Amino acid sequence: MSYSAQRADRARSFLKGLDAILLSSRPNVTYVSGYTGSDALAVYTESRTALFVDSRNTIQAREEAKAEVIEIKKRWEDIYEYLRSLNVSTLGIESGVMDVDTFLQLKDLFKDIEMTPLGGQLKYLRAVKDPGELSLITEAVRISETALQSVLSQGIIGRRESDVAFDIECEMRRLGASAPSFETIVASGPRAAMPHGAASEKVIRENESVVIDYGCVYRGYCSDQTITVCTGDPGGDFADAYRHVFKAQTLGIEALGPGVKTASVDKCAREHLDSTGYGTYFGHSLGHGVGMEVHEMPTLSPISKDTLEEGMVVTIEPGVYIPGKFGIRLEDMFVITDNSCKRITNLDKEAIKFLT
Amino acid sequence: MSYSAQRADRARSFLKGLDAILLSSRPNVTYVSGYTGSDALAVYTESRTALFVDSRNTIQAREEAKAEVIEIKKRWEDIYEYLRSLNVSTLGIESGVMDVDTFLQLKDLFKDIEMTPLGGQLKYLRAVKDPGELSLITEAVRISETALQSVLSQGIIGRRESDVAFDIECEMRRLGASAPSFETIVASGPRAAMPHGAASEKVIRENESVVIDYGCVYRGYCSDQTITVCTGDPGGDFADAYRHVFKAQTLGIEALGPGVKTASVDKCAREHLDSTGYGTYFGHSLGHGVGMEVHEMPTLSPISKDTLEEGMVVTIEPGVYIPGKFGIRLEDMFVITDNSCKRITNLDKEAIKFLT
Repeated sequence: MSYSAQRADRARSFLKGLDAILLSSRPNVTYVSGYTGSDALAVYTESRTALFVDSRNTIQAREEAKAEVIEIKKRWEDIYEYLRSLNVSTLGIESGVMDVDTFLQLKDLFKDIEMTPLGGQLKYLRAVKDPGELSLITEAVRISETALQSVLSQGIIGRRESDVAFDIECEMRRLGASAPSFETIVASGPRAAMPHGAASEKVIRENESVVIDYGCVYRGYCSDQTITVCTGDPGGDFADAYRHVFKAQTLGIEALGPGVKTASVDKCAREHLDSTGYGTYFGHSLGHGVGMEVHEMPTLSPISKDTLEEGMVVTIEPGVYIPGKFGIRLEDMFVITDNSCKRITNLDKEAIKFLT
Repeated sequence: MSYSAQRADRARSFLKGLDAILLSSRPNVTYVSGYTGSDALAVYTESRTALFVDSRNTIQAREEAKAEVIEIKKRWEDIYEYLRSLNVSTLGIESGVMDVDTFLQLKDLFKDIEMTPLGGQLKYLRAVKDPGELSLITEAVRISETALQSVLSQGIIGRRESDVAFDIECEMRRLGASAPSFETIVASGPRAAMPHGAASEKVIRENESVVIDYGCVYRGYCSDQTITVCTGDPGGDFADAYRHVFKAQTLGIEALGPGVKTASVDKCAREHLDSTGYGTYFGHSLGHGVGMEVHEMPTLSPISKDTLEEGMVVTIEPGVYIPGKFGIRLEDMFVITDNSCKRITNLDKEAIKFLT
């Protein structure tokens, strides 16, 4: 079975008795149709897949899509006509993505079609990756790691965070990435205690910790990895905290496997930080899925109800953030295998890495 | 009045008797709060503005926000508690952005609060720019034009579209932009007939037309401009079509001014292409607003109901796309003044520009 047929089968498993599903998020539309552009909608039934684009995108859609391409003039009216031509009376919608105004408009327009919110389910459409997707993710990781090593080898002390981030992003592009997978984080010294602190004008000094959280998009698929490096010894509890973040990550990784509840994976890591007094400085989830979007299903958090399956790609990224002092986060990506997991990222994090 | 007070006043004009408004789109949250990060929500009443962030973003929010910063544990429950503490019983929501699942969840949770969908109105929140915003947009334009001229001066014949796009994006970053404002379009030869054709691996040859549609983000504000250049004479009707696209753009620009219906601006340009036989090859709108988002209000199209106001920033971008042959689009940005408009972009488009 070809990969695209595998994806089509996966998509159809969400129909569960409904006549059709309307997809409106860009990654899901790409997933079922093969069209990589913007501003498109897809409708599929048990036997047909249609891609709706406007005239700006018709040529690209016809080149790329493994689906019937329909050029729309009046978006929703045209889709309604198509649905009626197939006698669709029940329609699943991407309610986690569709906006309220559109929903209220469609409730009026799609008079004889019952709409079922499938947001909760459809966000799992792409959670299990096929080999084609895994190879693109692996390549995104390879590009990002090559780029990072090249930039770090040139030294970071005395440089602005934003310049280091820019160099990483340029180097990823030069190596074949289409874009960063999110705004590159380079946060040094006390700024490293901001888990989402974007790169700023701050100059990186000696004896600071530097959190670098970054990734790229390669042919539509993302990488995501975080390292914490030092420009000399930051002092205080840094080395102790680093050791415990690494241990927490190791415990999380050891818990990964098919059939495992993600909340229990989060717990394995979080309990270690709790027991060592760092738990109050770890305020975010342990990890998340990665694919066409840098944050997708499953989620790994104390309140998640998700269960890991073979083929899912997830991050494990515990952190400790001491306000005004320092921050540490270690993040790697893994694919769930038939009995445990396989690491996708390669940068070693066990020993603190010192840079000049 | 400071610019932020001006923005706060503008935001409050949308209350129209409602007790509070909940903002959930990133640009609108930034607009009313000053916080530039992600994953935040804002609530404002006639007298108060609160910004809700989770622990990852608290430090940055406290640094940046001109609003009360509240760290959330349980997002919607915490916001509900805040609303009740202020005796809010009517709440406007950003229904053009809020997803259906969240809306259905809030209908349950916010039991004694009546939610009013304000999507149609709130998308105009940022439509009129203040001088602070205009200066950032002007700087974004300056950066993007400097970058483009630098890249084009090095020659484009024999280069891949994607390499030209990459160089433009890198140069914009080097000059101070944080990112491209959208995926850079470099579309040459027959690919120029794809109005949204992203830069591909195609090599730019002699005697082709090349559409370059690009822009950057500078401190949160976007630029957007399109030029069509030639690598020698593409032949056929190209020169004739180019002349008529330029004339259509000129007619659109001449129609700009406060109090003018945007549909009539679109009509001025479109009628010229219709009358010269090119109208069927112009399938998209004439223009759109630009600000924190590269596409925002107002829209300039045959079906738009918008009216121009002083301080709005819009594009005028007619195009002609002959499938399999060539494409032409000319796009500039303008700010509406008290009696007409002022051009923001500077690249001259009257004569066809030939490049080597």
